[in-house]
Amino acid sequence: MEMIPFNKPYYTGKETSYIEEAVHSGKISGDGIFTKKCHDFFELEMGFNKALLTTSCTDALEMAAILIEVKSGDEIIMPSYTFVSTSNAFVLRGAKIVFIDSSDNHPGMNAQLIEDAITPRTKAIVPVHYAGIACDMEKIMDLAAKYDLYVIEDAAQAIDSFFVNKLGQKIRLGTIGHLAAMSFHETKNIISGEGGLLIVNDSKLQSRAEIIREKGTNRSAFFRGEVDKYGWVDIGSSFLPSDIIAAFLYAQLESLNEIQSSRMLIWNNYHTAFTNIENMDKLFSLPYIPSYATNNAHMFYLLCKSSEIRVSFIEYLKRNSVHCVFHYLSLHKSPFYQKNSSNEYTLPFSDLYTDCLVRLPIYPELTPLKQKWIIECVKRFVNEFC
Amino acid sequence: MEMIPFNKPYYTGKETSYIEEAVHSGKISGDGIFTKKCHDFFELEMGFNKALLTTSCTDALEMAAILIEVKSGDEIIMPSYTFVSTSNAFVLRGAKIVFIDSSDNHPGMNAQLIEDAITPRTKAIVPVHYAGIACDMEKIMDLAAKYDLYVIEDAAQAIDSFFVNKLGQKIRLGTIGHLAAMSFHETKNIISGEGGLLIVNDSKLQSRAEIIREKGTNRSAFFRGEVDKYGWVDIGSSFLPSDIIAAFLYAQLESLNEIQSSRMLIWNNYHTAFTNIENMDKLFSLPYIPSYATNNAHMFYLLCKSSEIRVSFIEYLKRNSVHCVFHYLSLHKSPFYQKNSSNEYTLPFSDLYTDCLVRLPIYPELTPLKQKWIIECVKRFVNEFC
Repeated sequence: MEMIPFNKPYYTGKETSYIEEAVHSGKISGDGIFTKKCHDFFELEMGFNKALLTTSCTDALEMAAILIEVKSGDEIIMPSYTFVSTSNAFVLRGAKIVFIDSSDNHPGMNAQLIEDAITPRTKAIVPVHYAGIACDMEKIMDLAAKYDLYVIEDAAQAIDSFFVNKLGQKIRLGTIGHLAAMSFHETKNIISGEGGLLIVNDSKLQSRAEIIREKGTNRSAFFRGEVDKYGWVDIGSSFLPSDIIAAFLYAQLESLNEIQSSRMLIWNNYHTAFTNIENMDKLFSLPYIPSYATNNAHMFYLLCKSSEIRVSFIEYLKRNSVHCVFHYLSLHKSPFYQKNSSNEYTLPFSDLYTDCLVRLPIYPELTPLKQKWIIECVKRFVNEFC
Repeated sequence: MEMIPFNKPYYTGKETSYIEEAVHSGKISGDGIFTKKCHDFFELEMGFNKALLTTSCTDALEMAAILIEVKSGDEIIMPSYTFVSTSNAFVLRGAKIVFIDSSDNHPGMNAQLIEDAITPRTKAIVPVHYAGIACDMEKIMDLAAKYDLYVIEDAAQAIDSFFVNKLGQKIRLGTIGHLAAMSFHETKNIISGEGGLLIVNDSKLQSRAEIIREKGTNRSAFFRGEVDKYGWVDIGSSFLPSDIIAAFLYAQLESLNEIQSSRMLIWNNYHTAFTNIENMDKLFSLPYIPSYATNNAHMFYLLCKSSEIRVSFIEYLKRNSVHCVFHYLSLHKSPFYQKNSSNEYTLPFSDLYTDCLVRLPIYPELTPLKQKWIIECVKRFVNEFC
């Protein structure tokens, strides 16, 4: 039997004709016609104040770090259970990273622990919406207001997902922090291979964001006729993706609803099936979605009751032609952080997700027959292991 | 008459089928099958020791700055007449930029002036091969050896061009410095919209280069089976381009010879025609190619005898539907450098090229008829202006 991959990039069929359209427009460098279409989609359809495509979510986070003027010794609060780029983007500007533990019932940062970690050197809080599940943004924005901090949402996995406030209103993730970063890496719901987005909600940061993204030049203002020549006015980098990438991405955005429906169906199938497997709860917990969050079906994970169960599970599924994978390693235990920081941490829940979380295949091209096979394998594993 | 653009991205016709091939391979993030094909082309066909695709030449220069461990206060020597990214990449790591004037007969850095600019804090020399025309690399490498400095070639425009040593041997640009950076921006000979390449000639820098490019993780070693898990071991960023970009680029690389022949024909047509225009030399100098350099037909520029002539020339050609453009502004006079540096510079040749250089359309799709028209316009301008 052919291996069922953990991920398969979805292709709508329109991507390459849009790329040809970009080429025929005579401009395939950054900020061409498809970059504009993507920006419009994000601003008009999704309500982001200002959307700027970047070459990756990593780069969007780096732009954010430059924008809020992170200086040597500034402290940035974030979860330890996250991708290295969440922290590296700020370390590159000289920041000290302060890690917070995950929640006991889901991998997102435990917002109750943030206030104790705030010091006079704290510059920003970076909540990571793990698996597209919102952090407690009401609590976090209140703290930011109280201590005058920036909030940068790491919304890498959070497209089309929401925070639900106390009034029951759904507020789109990426619109809440002063800044937010999103990823279009091939493993995400909407993809361009590599790719990202910086969302600038704080209007005061917008004109400098354009400059930093254009290699530290005021080229954007020049093209709008606001200055008569453009030059080097700030630090910056080349954060613009090729319009080839934007053309690919735009085809995906047009199919957002179909992609989301398809992923949601798969997610729900897993959830229903696993709820009904006898003794499942002896080996695994199912994903928990807090009342203040929605699910965007970015990921279906199981939390194993021990790391040994996870090892056996991944091997068992591999023998049965299903590729399942673990995820992050606690950053506070990484070789880099251990070498460069004197902070001592005990973050039991971050370590729990490091050791025990396992992700199952989820993508539009996962057929019902294949998903049935995966569910069957899980059921057999539970039977054999219990 | 339709405007003749300054640049038109060339399309071989194979790009989108390669992109579809990448998608069907099941992997379109960085380091997919086409990234590998591009790396092989650069290493096997062009003889670069280690080739690593990046999202832009800017990013390749930033990788270089991280790789040579630029620290606050380190001095980096480079020409003032260059793109902002040459300097920004090092400023982002805290470097002090030391500018050198251009040569009197071409915009490249005057290598005779470098030794006087070297201090105990000098870390690297960054020669920029302007218009694909080599800097005096023998002189520069000798200085680097004498003072134990890194040499990072900014070969953004220098694909398929060479340095000619005293024995008359042609040495490919990009193979000479410890590191080199190349651009595939849509205005270059070989393109992917946005895109770049870091060339790592110094073998001692190669394993760390892989780590920095993979967000500071040892993921590459993990995939080669050299370590059993990968994690955060260094600073870094997401420098890998999407395999969509690599697929586009590979189609271009396969057509390198045709593209180069076509550009060279256009370059030579300009040169021959302008040599034969009466009174041409009262208004313009033609490009000069030093005996130690070859021409890769990246650019055809004219050097006007005054900035007033340039203004009139650009306007005259615009009225005649030809889009010609000036180029860099001396970085030592930029608002950013003026604000952040106490160095006082007098760099007359950098200012000369800033004020007087003008670039003419050159690209494979520029038809003989259109080029004839451009040459005719130049001839009429000379007649009317003299």
